[in-house]
Amino acid sequence: MIRNDTIVALATAQGISAIAVIRLSGKDAIVITQKIFKGKNLLEAASHTVHFGTVQHEGKIIDEVLITVFKKPNSFTQENAVEISCHGSPVIIKEIIKLLLSHGARLAGPGEFTKRAFLNGRFDLAQAEAVADLINAETDNARQAALNQMRGGFSKEINHLREELIHFASLIELELDFGEEDVEFAKRDDLRKLIVKIQSYLSALIQSFDQGNVIKNGVPTVIAGKPNAGKSTLLNVLLNEEKAIVSEIAGTTRDVIEDEIVLGGINFRFIDTAGLRETQDVIEAMGVERTRDRMKKASVILYLFDLTANNLPEIQDEVKELEKFGIPFIKVGNKVDKANQELINTLSQEGFIFISASHKTNIQQLKDKLLSFFQVSTVKSGDVLVTNLRHYQNLLQTHESLDRVLTGMRDNITGDFLAMDIRQSLHYLGEITGEITTDDLLENIFSKFCIGK
Amino acid sequence: MIRNDTIVALATAQGISAIAVIRLSGKDAIVITQKIFKGKNLLEAASHTVHFGTVQHEGKIIDEVLITVFKKPNSFTQENAVEISCHGSPVIIKEIIKLLLSHGARLAGPGEFTKRAFLNGRFDLAQAEAVADLINAETDNARQAALNQMRGGFSKEINHLREELIHFASLIELELDFGEEDVEFAKRDDLRKLIVKIQSYLSALIQSFDQGNVIKNGVPTVIAGKPNAGKSTLLNVLLNEEKAIVSEIAGTTRDVIEDEIVLGGINFRFIDTAGLRETQDVIEAMGVERTRDRMKKASVILYLFDLTANNLPEIQDEVKELEKFGIPFIKVGNKVDKANQELINTLSQEGFIFISASHKTNIQQLKDKLLSFFQVSTVKSGDVLVTNLRHYQNLLQTHESLDRVLTGMRDNITGDFLAMDIRQSLHYLGEITGEITTDDLLENIFSKFCIGK
Repeated sequence: MIRNDTIVALATAQGISAIAVIRLSGKDAIVITQKIFKGKNLLEAASHTVHFGTVQHEGKIIDEVLITVFKKPNSFTQENAVEISCHGSPVIIKEIIKLLLSHGARLAGPGEFTKRAFLNGRFDLAQAEAVADLINAETDNARQAALNQMRGGFSKEINHLREELIHFASLIELELDFGEEDVEFAKRDDLRKLIVKIQSYLSALIQSFDQGNVIKNGVPTVIAGKPNAGKSTLLNVLLNEEKAIVSEIAGTTRDVIEDEIVLGGINFRFIDTAGLRETQDVIEAMGVERTRDRMKKASVILYLFDLTANNLPEIQDEVKELEKFGIPFIKVGNKVDKANQELINTLSQEGFIFISASHKTNIQQLKDKLLSFFQVSTVKSGDVLVTNLRHYQNLLQTHESLDRVLTGMRDNITGDFLAMDIRQSLHYLGEITGEITTDDLLENIFSKFCIGK
Repeated sequence: MIRNDTIVALATAQGISAIAVIRLSGKDAIVITQKIFKGKNLLEAASHTVHFGTVQHEGKIIDEVLITVFKKPNSFTQENAVEISCHGSPVIIKEIIKLLLSHGARLAGPGEFTKRAFLNGRFDLAQAEAVADLINAETDNARQAALNQMRGGFSKEINHLREELIHFASLIELELDFGEEDVEFAKRDDLRKLIVKIQSYLSALIQSFDQGNVIKNGVPTVIAGKPNAGKSTLLNVLLNEEKAIVSEIAGTTRDVIEDEIVLGGINFRFIDTAGLRETQDVIEAMGVERTRDRMKKASVILYLFDLTANNLPEIQDEVKELEKFGIPFIKVGNKVDKANQELINTLSQEGFIFISASHKTNIQQLKDKLLSFFQVSTVKSGDVLVTNLRHYQNLLQTHESLDRVLTGMRDNITGDFLAMDIRQSLHYLGEITGEITTDDLLENIFSKFCIGK
């Protein structure tokens, strides 16, 4: 059901600011705005024009505003749309939205503008989902990956392959109509070639998810080691470099989140935690237990050894414990400036990296090592990457059901079963781009959007 | 010095949101934007038109944007101006601003857009100051008072009166040129009439400050009483009603600040504090001392008595203490539902209000009493109110120096002294509307603005 009643929401961030933008979309967006606006007659205004005037209620001026008119289908939602740029005061925003509601607009739900853009055919579902990813991007790589997907990404190619597959499915279903006559409209050999082609495209996308997921969601990283191994010092060194990198553009500096560091385009979320073998004490043992839990969730462990406090057997013992997790880890020997040279020589045979957190020695080498676990290159315009878990799962399922089609053909199963497997693949593929949707699916996707988008 | 280099800033609030608006103003605003924009040629675009396209850097697309072009003098600053509406991601905002800086824009300082609007003659200084008040308005009354001032307020009338006064000053100075000839170009009687007219207008403005100040800055209100008198319960009752009133418009609800309550268009800032006579204990005595300090800063004190815990002499004793502060106070008898009727009868003779905070009895009566101390009516479009302390002080100074002119005329002082006093009045008056300014004055005013405004 495509609804075109008029929705309204604040589209800019909340807070006191120079300006705020209230957005309307729907059949009566312009008519409703005209009812509260004194200035040019917006009904006669051309699309994409801006008009100065006042918002009024019962002769009382609420604010001076700039109103932009978008006429369907030339708007984000492809409906009539209006943007009201008012002064960025919460009192004014509330007052204007209340007025619009009283004239027949309705508060937009989360993502409802984007949902309408999708329902009205502006873009497909995978592209619509990318809008939210774009807004939430925390690194430039994540921004570029989302933007690429929003601007088309794999959508076109998937739709193209899907159409070819639909063609075959139809032919096979046609064969069924002829029942016993044993005709073969769909050449099995051509179908096999098509499926192999589709699967090879899907495989590339599926493989890109490793990188795409790291780019979109960042990497949970545990920084562990015994007390006084220098974990906090190292974390601060990494954070301070990050803070220095974060540009000082006024009005855009976010507070650097305590434990998030962008390295090589990847967001590393550091979790500072204790060592693995600290104590027999019950309470501290609980701490060790928590450390183990956290380590299991990490993508990489950065384990600090105090070279001045531990001897070789102790260190080797701790390394053995680490290996049991089966998670990539980096063995970092800290306080290298004060360490015994013999110990250093031995450990360097065992792949240790030596740093001095307090003297900022070898920090770059440590970063390079950390990055080497993630083959992430800078995302360029046009690069196609799967970053969305839903897409990834559907791609896997499509790939599997196409496997069944291939197996079926090899086993000479009847056309009706073949058609079923093809239809199943088409279903999974269609869900990615939204050719096939359910209310639940849409609800699930758009409820995660912010209001006003 | 009027500068017209190109400034840039985020104009919407910080945070992740559907859209964000980056604003540029200055001679090269359009030229600089064109350098990062792929879409229509903005240099050929008409003023007040909106253009879809992409922001690009070295062939890489940063975001899809809508660009609005404003051509001088038809912009807020009366310079060329551009608004870039991009996706509301801090990463994107930072990237676009960085790009604009690299092409010759400069980060705007606080209030620099409004300062330029003032310097370019869009409005006078009193109106410019109202822009900040408008954005920071916490109640609808404060919004309306600021808007009225921004749209003209007393500026026009003050300028008119100032011009009449300048006329007289010039005539008197002309007399001085004729030295000993004893001519009188400026009729003293007309001057006297003018000054009386000006003073009567100034007096009305000066008197409006009591109300204007309450509307703009709210009222510090102390809610005091002995422990268990029910202060927190009453505060919660008032706050919860407030929360229910604060509209549920999604995206605009601010967190209700713990102790701010809007009643009758006035923002009451409640300070919960202890009673006046609690203990001989040293530490608690410090608490009592703090209570006294707070009470001295209050505009009104709401003092709660527990009718079930105190007898008449105790209550009367506490009231006597209260009276010493010389600050308006309301005597509130709490727990009226459980109180002794005789006590109620006696206290009702002494102006007590009786409530039950826990049963929400008589809360409206208490609110009415609170509001009765402040003669604030709803501000309507066009109402002229002085809300700004700087204006208030200058109005007082103008009034005083006009007094000196009147006295001087009565005492038949010579024209040169008369002219000096008139010039002094003109100076104070001119500072209000910015006919007379200094760099320090402007710096002081605009540094309090937010960036992007």
